[in-house]
Amino acid sequence: MSLTSDLLLANRLADAAGEAIRPLFRAAFAHEAKADASPVTEADRSAEAAMRRLLDAEAPRDGIIGEEYGAERVDASRQWVLDPIDGTVSFMAGRPIFGTLIALLQDGWPILGIIDQPVAGERWVGALGQPTMFNGAPARTRICRELGDAVLATTGPQYFADHDAEHFMALAAKTSHKRMVFGGDCYNYGLLASGHIDLVVEAGLKLHDFAALVPIVEGAGGTMCDWNGDRLNADSAGHVIALGDPARLEDVIDGLACHH
Amino acid sequence: MSLTSDLLLANRLADAAGEAIRPLFRAAFAHEAKADASPVTEADRSAEAAMRRLLDAEAPRDGIIGEEYGAERVDASRQWVLDPIDGTVSFMAGRPIFGTLIALLQDGWPILGIIDQPVAGERWVGALGQPTMFNGAPARTRICRELGDAVLATTGPQYFADHDAEHFMALAAKTSHKRMVFGGDCYNYGLLASGHIDLVVEAGLKLHDFAALVPIVEGAGGTMCDWNGDRLNADSAGHVIALGDPARLEDVIDGLACHH
Repeated sequence: MSLTSDLLLANRLADAAGEAIRPLFRAAFAHEAKADASPVTEADRSAEAAMRRLLDAEAPRDGIIGEEYGAERVDASRQWVLDPIDGTVSFMAGRPIFGTLIALLQDGWPILGIIDQPVAGERWVGALGQPTMFNGAPARTRICRELGDAVLATTGPQYFADHDAEHFMALAAKTSHKRMVFGGDCYNYGLLASGHIDLVVEAGLKLHDFAALVPIVEGAGGTMCDWNGDRLNADSAGHVIALGDPARLEDVIDGLACHH
Repeated sequence: MSLTSDLLLANRLADAAGEAIRPLFRAAFAHEAKADASPVTEADRSAEAAMRRLLDAEAPRDGIIGEEYGAERVDASRQWVLDPIDGTVSFMAGRPIFGTLIALLQDGWPILGIIDQPVAGERWVGALGQPTMFNGAPARTRICRELGDAVLATTGPQYFADHDAEHFMALAAKTSHKRMVFGGDCYNYGLLASGHIDLVVEAGLKLHDFAALVPIVEGAGGTMCDWNGDRLNADSAGHVIALGDPARLEDVIDGLACHH
């Protein structure tokens, strides 16, 4: 398939997920415990099921890595990575800043990504070699002259393990605490691509959490890497930096002080 | 004036603030430093100015306590408390979960409160002795059988001083960290009134941050108090609890372990 037809299909996946999710937002529903105790909602499951039905019909040879229903055709060179609701706690709390994440990996690397916020009707689309689009218009990250000016976002301290919090606080000390914003999950990366947030630093992200973000952030002029500045991969233990202005990357890595 | 006419006026204030704020959301604008280094936006100032113009015309004897432009007619028994943008960092970051706060104090106690989210078009209205309304329909907090089930929200650890973080973490340890959500400012209290969040615990709130929240939370069936369980006042040093199910109050106070 061409990237154009992949993009069409990816947008249809996001449409289908949104249709499943919207009626359940702020509805009363029963919670269910998974092995890792994260809240699983009916919305999560029905959105992933809807996307899988479409993929089975439209791209039956492609692999699927889904947050809810696991992996299929793991040997395929093309893999769709699906996270129906990234930001499950925001969804539970009724905050319209969660998102559906859809990525297409080619030989393990994300060449296409979507962040879709189905309640607000906001969609970021990124594809290798193409400018990132937000609701059909180009999105660009913004310049950040110094770290002290940066709007810094992270979802929450509870996602840090071991010494993560110390490194994060070392970095945060170089920014203004009046410009630090918590919560937001994938939505922060979309806002970074659109030039409203300068820096997102997180730990504990899994492949399905970050794969879709890479083409979006990089197609908007930003950069993504791990806390050492290395290319992200499934073994980075989810230490993720997204930076709108790549000229500040050295400052960020130095600020995190992860080098020994 | 009657409470009905006060409510009409308060809604007009929120309309006027929203008109001033919406065009500036996600627009590029210059930041300006205040004495306390919090970001002040053009939106903040023009929204408060618009509300003050209305109050000067419609309620010229009432006092005004504004976050941006200070106090007027401080001896009046009725005081309007205005916070044009609560959640300035969320506003800066392009997240539609900030809010305009409007309260009316009678002899120092809030008898009317509004949380308005002008981008999403969401408004919570509370008034003494009346059910809280969300976009014209009654809002109710939900039952919470035990603290372990609670969705717990707080805006961010950077607002804790001294030993606040220790007390908060002691409480958080009794809840599920998978149901803890950060960021959100006043918006969390609206979602609590609507039964999506069970508990908000914060420190460092000023009168203009919490006055509007009290009638909204209490009119929806919840309770608000300080970290010792005492009635909130301007001297509580901003240690605020909002709880959807008042039956859990003792558990929350015990969890915070502030008693010496």
